[in-house]
Amino acid sequence: MNKGLLIVLSGPSGVGKGTVCTELRRRHPELIYSVSATTRSPREGERDGVNYFFKTREHFQHMIATDALLEYAEYVGNYYGTPREFVEKTLAEGKDIILEIEVQGALKVKEKFPEGVFVFLLPPSLNELKQRIVGRGTETQATIDHRLSVAVEEMNLLYHYDYAVVNDQIDSACSRIASIITAEHCKRERFLHELFRELQELTPAQNGTER
Amino acid sequence: MNKGLLIVLSGPSGVGKGTVCTELRRRHPELIYSVSATTRSPREGERDGVNYFFKTREHFQHMIATDALLEYAEYVGNYYGTPREFVEKTLAEGKDIILEIEVQGALKVKEKFPEGVFVFLLPPSLNELKQRIVGRGTETQATIDHRLSVAVEEMNLLYHYDYAVVNDQIDSACSRIASIITAEHCKRERFLHELFRELQELTPAQNGTER
Repeated sequence: MNKGLLIVLSGPSGVGKGTVCTELRRRHPELIYSVSATTRSPREGERDGVNYFFKTREHFQHMIATDALLEYAEYVGNYYGTPREFVEKTLAEGKDIILEIEVQGALKVKEKFPEGVFVFLLPPSLNELKQRIVGRGTETQATIDHRLSVAVEEMNLLYHYDYAVVNDQIDSACSRIASIITAEHCKRERFLHELFRELQELTPAQNGTER
Repeated sequence: MNKGLLIVLSGPSGVGKGTVCTELRRRHPELIYSVSATTRSPREGERDGVNYFFKTREHFQHMIATDALLEYAEYVGNYYGTPREFVEKTLAEGKDIILEIEVQGALKVKEKFPEGVFVFLLPPSLNELKQRIVGRGTETQATIDHRLSVAVEEMNLLYHYDYAVVNDQIDSACSRIASIITAEHCKRERFLHELFRELQELTPAQNGTER
């Protein structure tokens, strides 16, 4: 059986990664969602292993030390990270898993998991992105320049991804991501091993000697 | 504007390339069909530039000599080949073009057009392929061995392709090929040039000096 695919969905802040990922999972319930680990406390209704893997700070630091996370970061005093074991177990079962993550985290995942399928979500146009940044007219030039720099920096990271999908409409963005997953399953590498094994059995030479 | 994609659909004899290609074109009329050149005479109802580009033997040999064909072969006294100009013109217009061709021809196309998207159509199972070859019980062992050899040889060529699609059902084979085309349009290389040009315009440094 072939291993599943790790799909990493990323892109600049505000591009709509979360919305697209939710819609994609609604349409493709067979796609497993990579559940993050965190040290923050569960909120009302959140379940361990569904919304997050809830960990103590000590446990999380042990995971960092033992390379049990594909990536992690600290926000306002809490750790968040991607447990390697859950991803690898899912892939080994032949199931695809999707990880929705910001651009820096995605690059860290790529270091440990270069065989992942890295999809970059693009805004419908850079002009729109720019208008959103400079358009309000209430910011100083320095603030605008800083935001533009961050946006340009994040967009430049496209270079490290396999695919780009313009988030012009959620529906078509989801369809394109689904097509990418289908196409990746059709990559010839995924057929070679099994096929060559079967071909061995077919070859006349063996028919002559062994049968 | 981005160039179109050259989709090369191939696979072993009898796998159903023609049927899949016809259905794919019916579903996706925007996909241009690569019309072959031939020296054979037009049959009733065949039109030049639609069914074939009909050429004299002299003209065809001139095309061979001037590298105007992506591949060619001679069958029962007539030449058949893929004119390079039609393919390149279509791609330059930003349109995708599909070429349905046997495995040896596809490899020749790959030499001249490595940027093409090479799709190998597989039979539903090798067992089925084998049954078709040995099953009739009317052939000599030598004939069976020869056919098995040819089949194994053709299947081994999968190694040179980008994608494999199992032709278990025409519908799902067509959907998978359509997904491959969509995914290829999402390859990040196709976005980088335009994006980096736009990013240049966005960068704060230029805002400061030029505006």
